[in-house]
Amino acid sequence: MYYYSESIQNLIEELSSLPNIGPKSAQRLAFHLLNLPQKRVEHLAESIVTARKKICFCEKCFNLTDQPVCQICSDPKRDTSTIMVVEEPSDLAAYEKTGQYKGVYHVLHGAVNPMVGVQPENLKLKELMQRLQREDVKEVIIATNSTVEGEATALWISKFVKQAGIKVTRIASGVPVGGALEFIDEMTLFRALEGRTEL
Amino acid sequence: MYYYSESIQNLIEELSSLPNIGPKSAQRLAFHLLNLPQKRVEHLAESIVTARKKICFCEKCFNLTDQPVCQICSDPKRDTSTIMVVEEPSDLAAYEKTGQYKGVYHVLHGAVNPMVGVQPENLKLKELMQRLQREDVKEVIIATNSTVEGEATALWISKFVKQAGIKVTRIASGVPVGGALEFIDEMTLFRALEGRTEL
Repeated sequence: MYYYSESIQNLIEELSSLPNIGPKSAQRLAFHLLNLPQKRVEHLAESIVTARKKICFCEKCFNLTDQPVCQICSDPKRDTSTIMVVEEPSDLAAYEKTGQYKGVYHVLHGAVNPMVGVQPENLKLKELMQRLQREDVKEVIIATNSTVEGEATALWISKFVKQAGIKVTRIASGVPVGGALEFIDEMTLFRALEGRTEL
Repeated sequence: MYYYSESIQNLIEELSSLPNIGPKSAQRLAFHLLNLPQKRVEHLAESIVTARKKICFCEKCFNLTDQPVCQICSDPKRDTSTIMVVEEPSDLAAYEKTGQYKGVYHVLHGAVNPMVGVQPENLKLKELMQRLQREDVKEVIIATNSTVEGEATALWISKFVKQAGIKVTRIASGVPVGGALEFIDEMTLFRALEGRTEL
């Protein structure tokens, strides 16, 4: 069976392999790309390759960056005595968008998940311990996801941060802003109750 | 405000400009690409550029192809006396996937739409007329979309195909297979009634 010539078929297959892009979206994307001016297409391809080539981990916090030390770690206005531990660079970006956090980060690049073979030694945990020894850290805020893996990772980290004699906190779990109680799952409602604060 | 280094930001912006990819998906895609091995990323970029470079219109039917004449038009098993007229190459692909159509195609690359400035002369209509004169065509099947633009284009084509003394048909409009009547719009129900066939 052929629907397309080989180069189009190749392109559709390549695009389908990306996350959240099924065969239909891949086809739509491919036809869109084939309709663009050639210069635009070359520019897109170049952006992809350049970003991939330049990108490395920040020496300090393991955020993705194209410098040895990322923009956040090299910003003198950030409070280096507070470290927020997140799973992925996109989690860091989510907190940066709030504009409310003035400390620095530590990106683990995953969460402990023995089911798929992610052990603590696969994460940037040893590097976090080294930072706690070297740097003058006053508080570690654990902002891993509210999933089983995220919670397990949080527990793991809290243990050795406490041993180092440093204050360790966890971001609050509860009802999201704008959330109607009737649509919130039981576990979240339970957590929101547990974590209630006095008014 | 910076969340990402420049090359990542560029990549996210480039990806956001693609259809059906919003800022969130673009970010997810970008991080996925940055996690792939460099070879894979270069291969993807190459596929995009190669496909765009090689692709041209089939001389006969204006399908997208990397040959002068597309695989369908050059297949001796296809019945060249029946031409199905479609709006886009993706419509052709949709009919090819059924595996039921043995004739050839003619791709218009659009539909008449005066609101956005698409006039009949912007479509491959003149080329269709020339084919009807040159080739021995027995039937033209109009398979433009069931939209206002598609119907207007169908009407336009049927007029001049009839003038050329060639049989012209339109694909049926009605209730889709598996469709529950209660969820079908009035216009479709009306069309299905009009197009009823005797059992």
